[in-house]
Amino acid sequence: MLGEIKGLNEECGVFAVWNHKDAAQITYYGLHSLQHRGQEGAGIVVSDGDKLSIHKGLGLVTEAFKEGDLERLEGHASIGHVRYATAGGGGLVNCQPLLFQSQTGGLAVAHNGNLVNANGLKHQLEGQGSIFQSTSDTEVLAHLVKRSVYPRLEDKVTNALSMIKGAYAFAVMTENKLMVALDPNGLRPLSIGKIGEGYVISSETCAFDVVGAEYLREVQPGELITFDADGMHSEIFSSSSARSICSMEYIYFARPDSNVDEINVHSARKNLGRQLAQELPVEADVVTGVPDSSISAAIGYAEEAGIPYELGLIKNRYVGRTFIQPSQELREQGVKMKLSAVRGIVEGKRVVMVDDSIVRGTTSRRIVKLLKDAGAKEVHVRISSPPITHPCFYGIDTSTKSELIASSHSVEEMREMMGADSLSFLSVDGMLKGIGRKQESSSCGQCLACFTGNYPTEIYPDTLHPHDKVLNT
Amino acid sequence: MLGEIKGLNEECGVFAVWNHKDAAQITYYGLHSLQHRGQEGAGIVVSDGDKLSIHKGLGLVTEAFKEGDLERLEGHASIGHVRYATAGGGGLVNCQPLLFQSQTGGLAVAHNGNLVNANGLKHQLEGQGSIFQSTSDTEVLAHLVKRSVYPRLEDKVTNALSMIKGAYAFAVMTENKLMVALDPNGLRPLSIGKIGEGYVISSETCAFDVVGAEYLREVQPGELITFDADGMHSEIFSSSSARSICSMEYIYFARPDSNVDEINVHSARKNLGRQLAQELPVEADVVTGVPDSSISAAIGYAEEAGIPYELGLIKNRYVGRTFIQPSQELREQGVKMKLSAVRGIVEGKRVVMVDDSIVRGTTSRRIVKLLKDAGAKEVHVRISSPPITHPCFYGIDTSTKSELIASSHSVEEMREMMGADSLSFLSVDGMLKGIGRKQESSSCGQCLACFTGNYPTEIYPDTLHPHDKVLNT
Amino acid sequence: MLGEIKGLNEECGVFAVWNHKDAAQITYYGLHSLQHRGQEGAGIVVSDGDKLSIHKGLGLVTEAFKEGDLERLEGHASIGHVRYATAGGGGLVNCQPLLFQSQTGGLAVAHNGNLVNANGLKHQLEGQGSIFQSTSDTEVLAHLVKRSVYPRLEDKVTNALSMIKGAYAFAVMTENKLMVALDPNGLRPLSIGKIGEGYVISSETCAFDVVGAEYLREVQPGELITFDADGMHSEIFSSSSARSICSMEYIYFARPDSNVDEINVHSARKNLGRQLAQELPVEADVVTGVPDSSISAAIGYAEEAGIPYELGLIKNRYVGRTFIQPSQELREQGVKMKLSAVRGIVEGKRVVMVDDSIVRGTTSRRIVKLLKDAGAKEVHVRISSPPITHPCFYGIDTSTKSELIASSHSVEEMREMMGADSLSFLSVDGMLKGIGRKQESSSCGQCLACFTGNYPTEIYPDTLHPHDKVLNT
Amino acid sequence: MLGEIKGLNEECGVFAVWNHKDAAQITYYGLHSLQHRGQEGAGIVVSDGDKLSIHKGLGLVTEAFKEGDLERLEGHASIGHVRYATAGGGGLVNCQPLLFQSQTGGLAVAHNGNLVNANGLKHQLEGQGSIFQSTSDTEVLAHLVKRSVYPRLEDKVTNALSMIKGAYAFAVMTENKLMVALDPNGLRPLSIGKIGEGYVISSETCAFDVVGAEYLREVQPGELITFDADGMHSEIFSSSSARSICSMEYIYFARPDSNVDEINVHSARKNLGRQLAQELPVEADVVTGVPDSSISAAIGYAEEAGIPYELGLIKNRYVGRTFIQPSQELREQGVKMKLSAVRGIVEGKRVVMVDDSIVRGTTSRRIVKLLKDAGAKEVHVRISSPPITHPCFYGIDTSTKSELIASSHSVEEMREMMGADSLSFLSVDGMLKGIGRKQESSSCGQCLACFTGNYPTEIYPDTLHPHDKVLNT
Repeated sequence: MLGEIKGLNEECGVFAVWNHKDAAQITYYGLHSLQHRGQEGAGIVVSDGDKLSIHKGLGLVTEAFKEGDLERLEGHASIGHVRYATAGGGGLVNCQPLLFQSQTGGLAVAHNGNLVNANGLKHQLEGQGSIFQSTSDTEVLAHLVKRSVYPRLEDKVTNALSMIKGAYAFAVMTENKLMVALDPNGLRPLSIGKIGEGYVISSETCAFDVVGAEYLREVQPGELITFDADGMHSEIFSSSSARSICSMEYIYFARPDSNVDEINVHSARKNLGRQLAQELPVEADVVTGVPDSSISAAIGYAEEAGIPYELGLIKNRYVGRTFIQPSQELREQGVKMKLSAVRGIVEGKRVVMVDDSIVRGTTSRRIVKLLKDAGAKEVHVRISSPPITHPCFYGIDTSTKSELIASSHSVEEMREMMGADSLSFLSVDGMLKGIGRKQESSSCGQCLACFTGNYPTEIYPDTLHPHDKVLNT
Repeated sequence: MLGEIKGLNEECGVFAVWNHKDAAQITYYGLHSLQHRGQEGAGIVVSDGDKLSIHKGLGLVTEAFKEGDLERLEGHASIGHVRYATAGGGGLVNCQPLLFQSQTGGLAVAHNGNLVNANGLKHQLEGQGSIFQSTSDTEVLAHLVKRSVYPRLEDKVTNALSMIKGAYAFAVMTENKLMVALDPNGLRPLSIGKIGEGYVISSETCAFDVVGAEYLREVQPGELITFDADGMHSEIFSSSSARSICSMEYIYFARPDSNVDEINVHSARKNLGRQLAQELPVEADVVTGVPDSSISAAIGYAEEAGIPYELGLIKNRYVGRTFIQPSQELREQGVKMKLSAVRGIVEGKRVVMVDDSIVRGTTSRRIVKLLKDAGAKEVHVRISSPPITHPCFYGIDTSTKSELIASSHSVEEMREMMGADSLSFLSVDGMLKGIGRKQESSSCGQCLACFTGNYPTEIYPDTLHPHDKVLNT
Repeated sequence: MLGEIKGLNEECGVFAVWNHKDAAQITYYGLHSLQHRGQEGAGIVVSDGDKLSIHKGLGLVTEAFKEGDLERLEGHASIGHVRYATAGGGGLVNCQPLLFQSQTGGLAVAHNGNLVNANGLKHQLEGQGSIFQSTSDTEVLAHLVKRSVYPRLEDKVTNALSMIKGAYAFAVMTENKLMVALDPNGLRPLSIGKIGEGYVISSETCAFDVVGAEYLREVQPGELITFDADGMHSEIFSSSSARSICSMEYIYFARPDSNVDEINVHSARKNLGRQLAQELPVEADVVTGVPDSSISAAIGYAEEAGIPYELGLIKNRYVGRTFIQPSQELREQGVKMKLSAVRGIVEGKRVVMVDDSIVRGTTSRRIVKLLKDAGAKEVHVRISSPPITHPCFYGIDTSTKSELIASSHSVEEMREMMGADSLSFLSVDGMLKGIGRKQESSSCGQCLACFTGNYPTEIYPDTLHPHDKVLNT
Repeated sequence: MLGEIKGLNEECGVFAVWNHKDAAQITYYGLHSLQHRGQEGAGIVVSDGDKLSIHKGLGLVTEAFKEGDLERLEGHASIGHVRYATAGGGGLVNCQPLLFQSQTGGLAVAHNGNLVNANGLKHQLEGQGSIFQSTSDTEVLAHLVKRSVYPRLEDKVTNALSMIKGAYAFAVMTENKLMVALDPNGLRPLSIGKIGEGYVISSETCAFDVVGAEYLREVQPGELITFDADGMHSEIFSSSSARSICSMEYIYFARPDSNVDEINVHSARKNLGRQLAQELPVEADVVTGVPDSSISAAIGYAEEAGIPYELGLIKNRYVGRTFIQPSQELREQGVKMKLSAVRGIVEGKRVVMVDDSIVRGTTSRRIVKLLKDAGAKEVHVRISSPPITHPCFYGIDTSTKSELIASSHSVEEMREMMGADSLSFLSVDGMLKGIGRKQESSSCGQCLACFTGNYPTEIYPDTLHPHDKVLNT
């Protein structure tokens, strides 16, 4: 579930507007609908054609932006960002967009993804006297652009992109151009929409419904799209390999009302649940899902299995940075954080608990215990994805193989550790079938690295965790 | 749905703790889980046996209480409140609990409900020189208690309660006693739980799951329960009539994981949905519910009808007082507030849209339009409650009969106004069957006033709206 | 000096406006110039003829009022207040003006002074069932007004005033009347000015210079002045005794640019300093004053004595509630709070240190030490007022005779305790001559109670401190 | 006076601590006593030997730092800064210290002064691909240090210093070294003190008195002092010319309790006032000074002239960023900003008004009008410095010669413009005599550029204002 994956994958959300007089406001509502992709900080840079202006803040979009902040951001173009994790260090300085001002103009950059050769590039640049503002890998792109000898901005950017490796969806803006780019494997989602005479670009399509934009198309792997006074221009900066979009976007990360690469996420999850019920049926009284990301799969499971879907688990929405955490003592006395089980539903029942994924397994163990403490007679855990056995290098650089419970334990060992009456995972084939992408001969179209260890890109030494390096010698 | 009912019913949430060393903290988490009952303000009064201390603030619980505020509230007993609406005027002064200090000690009061003879009593008290701090009807109780000539506090309180009429769940606290009381018709829910050696009292049982308390029993209609150094004492201050608990608690107000008078709300709503599918079937491709309160009914409808349940409508969670509202211009351009329809789900489909209730009908019309704009071929509106034709005097004093669309329009007229392809309401019998309370011979156990006009209490002139008074002459 | 007197005298500042369309704004600037009279909290109530609106906050005027707060206070009449001390308990609820709303209209009250029979009156009122909002003595007046049987507001107010004893300058406002009143001894200052077609009333005239008003006259002892649609009306509610204005207003409390009862405060203080130099000369190299209130006296002393006035002591202006206090450890290492001595000025010098008054003597001892630590060869302390030997009952109710060092120690004992090379106080006659009020045959026009024990009013049991009561038996 | 000079000179305050366990706290109190040198923003960087941590904020020191901010700044060494003006653009990003993190360690820089060749250097650096974080000239130093090929930090810094021209007092810190440097002309003040086993460095000595440090010596022109594990080391990086300390530090900028290059500022100002009385006597009734910076000179004038010094003008201390400005309409009705005249003092009197300097002359005109409106019979303006006829390039880059009233008007023309009865300025010789620095044969020791146009350094094209450049062709 969402909480547990935290730390595995450094997702963020990117949103941009070109040619709309209320660009900053549109971006605010767009970022708000991408809030689930990042709650550490939010920012917007806007261009009025002459200069770039910025506002960033920590916390939720509604915490980072106060009345008046938007009014100061006048302009017709903008890029915005919500930040998820603390990789690269926390604090406002690492919130995006990053804005770089110079005597010849400004450059703003927002990024979703993770570069696998960022540390090496940064080391080289600092050796040549460059000073970095942040500890974020995103800043590397700006330095490469600034040092590029090409005169045309588009060429500077493709020159810089050719040097970086990994997963990225970039939005780059100067006073009079907006550019968006996707990595050659298309690991991250990035969609384009039309709004009035202008354009919006978003990590997820759910933002289009909110701001009243119409879906146009996906940014393609290895594509750089430039918006300027002459409209929208596309160029391919890398011979496109087959797309390898992150499976986790479907499984737990994206909002259910988004279409990721043209497939609706809620429907995909319901189908994962149906698939799960077919592959791994069990006799039970109620089906319940771990909120929020597993609800759709649980409904699908219930429909397919003919077992009633009930609200056996409830998420407590502690929003923002201002929630006062219970003391350890109170927690031990039973004050619940995040999740509680509903005794009235589960008492005396055989419960199918559908969850979307298992990382370290500690959350699952806690939920099984919650259900048993609330009187569940049996708890059958059904996971709507295959076991995660390999770290992701397209998100965050600290997670190691040893933290992934499925990399070192059998399903039976895991079942025992979490105290469940049964535990099963969806097969890789079942997952692909459930999501239902059109399969090409050579490729399934998805990145399966975390399930199989087949990474779609080269992996550089500086992306490996120290502990793993030792293991690898 | 929830948004629309706003203004019809002045619900609030009450939570209290007796005999727990972290009373204020427990109350904070309890109020947090009652947050859906009131988002205008929150407050806690705590007693350490010697003195009462208070903290109140506007907005959500997490906005009203900051780090450090709880630490200053030391004591073993507390009462807390979340405030819903602005009846009686807004501002911190009307946030509860109200605290009254005097040379002989303090008195704190928190209240969920509405008194029907408050204005008349207040007029009499002011004529005798009393000064009111607030414009809330709750303060009347305190003045009646203070002016009561009985020496014993319990007698002062029952004396005061005997003078007030209407719907109420009260929590009253002095330095060394906590008292809770429910009106003689039991219009509002109020439950008691056990926590360690102490007690918790809550408007809804969902709070018990969060703080690790165990459900004990309901406060009975006309019952005053006193907690003091000798434990818990009950006395009946009014010959109990049959219970008439507010039907709306089941239909849309309470949290789905609460049991209201021992019936689980999510299950009740699913059954309302099933009942609705039996009474009012329709050929369709997808079922969708209006979030959040109609989701359970929609799932029930889908299960019963054998039509897939999908996420056709998404609620945007704009939390707290800090959200920046879109300008009128942006709204007209399509920036969505609160709800958006998911084109990927509804486009080209025949949609059953399940909602819990209709008040003025404007929200329903807007949602039908959202669905049609997103490409729905047909929209069939199914309401999981009967038409609301009469104002509620147990909540708020401003709503008039003329605002209730069902009081002056036929179902066909309403269907046409909202542009739906069909519209049907659940019958009163279907609703009672769906909720499934044990029926007594003389009474269904629920207040049906808003559907039938049969009010369980006397209605005083000062509770009527000026416009209605004219109608009534 | 000011810091030390804190706790002796509960001064506050009152400001009011009648008939000016920007009443709240004018009051904001007026209160700002009375900021020295109270820094605990500030508030404004405004009337637009129909209703009273209020805003109050803790801290400085600039902390209590934020952009937008003033705009919400629309009206042509207002009363404002800055609060000094915590007598009656702290918190927003005790900040003034107090506002009492009832079904028949509102009543706002602001007060500078201290009532000597407040506790007794409050006891009676609570016994009759009245509920008090605050623990402030000011609220007693409102309850007396509300319970008065007279129909006309002016009569209700004079009826109430006739029951209270002590020192007061009151401003009282309803929707359509503003009233100000001064106690029969005129212990507190209160002046009237003209602004455009309207009026301003202020505790000090310095506010008139700031808001562009013209001084008109003093409110007289025992006078009630009413402003309404017909203009300004005066009535005497008490046969005026001779005025006994608080001497301390001249000596340290009022701002030097104010005229108190038509005498300029800076000039009065310079004359006190001159008088001091005549009565108590000493051979020295430099004269320095304890900032801020003793600077004028020090300049007068220097001029008269022909010794150069220098900046030997500097006050660190730690403004507002947000200053982070140094730890005890840092203080012991020499981090200075409030005052530091200037080594470059005092090193190797014989210093005359002029201070305005001595209460507990601890501050004086600290300052002498600061000067000696900074290298002063000799420190001669000269106090521009007589020894304070008796508590004040017209300000604060907690100070006891035993805290006043001069009530139990000889001048020589005090000199030794503070480590000064010499110490002298101005005589009572010297003080009267220095301030230079026109002497009437029967009275000096000033309250001398703290120097002589001759209290101008009756003293009630409840104004005495428990410890003093024991002493008095 | 201070207000008017705003915009002429970009003064700031620098404070640093080496080897004290509460370095951040000490710096907070030090910066607080330098608050008069900059109120736009404040910041502290601290080193614990391993890493550098930073906190910066806008506004006063008490606004920029909140409870808890200091606790997070653990370390034994720190540099702090208060920022005055908006040259280089406002906002947090330009607040200092600037902190630059790299893979090989951090570098923090704080700066008081103005570089005259910053734009040219920045242009070169950006051409080579460097990215600047801020628009402040201070950042140039960091880039020069980072690009220096010398291996030793001290050599990198002196190498960088050798390339920059202008006025500067720098504090530079890495994880294990603190360095301070003064420009070769010693235009800015910078003093060293001893605190326990450690050191403090401050723009003004007044901070030493506050934190309990002992004055040690001045940093010399062209001197770089390094503090590290081995203590304090000095090296001269530029053959020192004669010192040319800014005259304005004595005249109005520094705090009166500071010693600037070992001369007490209050005493210097009193002597300027005495000198002024000798050179330019006038018959009058009262002497008054424009607060705060002219008070000392006014007292000196009064003493020398034998005319009483009185408080004819009062400054309203509107502190911080939260003061609500009066509307234009209220200002026209007489609501005073900043200064008001005391009618009780000046009415009917011949007033000598002492001010420290005149820049554009608009403030002086307003003050003369205030005094006349308050009834002054005559107003004689006496300025305790010579006419300012040339712009300063060691502070701010926007002020042009044409803004300086004395550069284009005779004294008589100025007198007429400001409506004074007489106007006179102190002579350059009188100023030098008043301040009383030890004169060396070749130099007066002070920068006199603004009075004479003799600039102690070369002036580069990019320091000139566009308008002046035209004049200069």
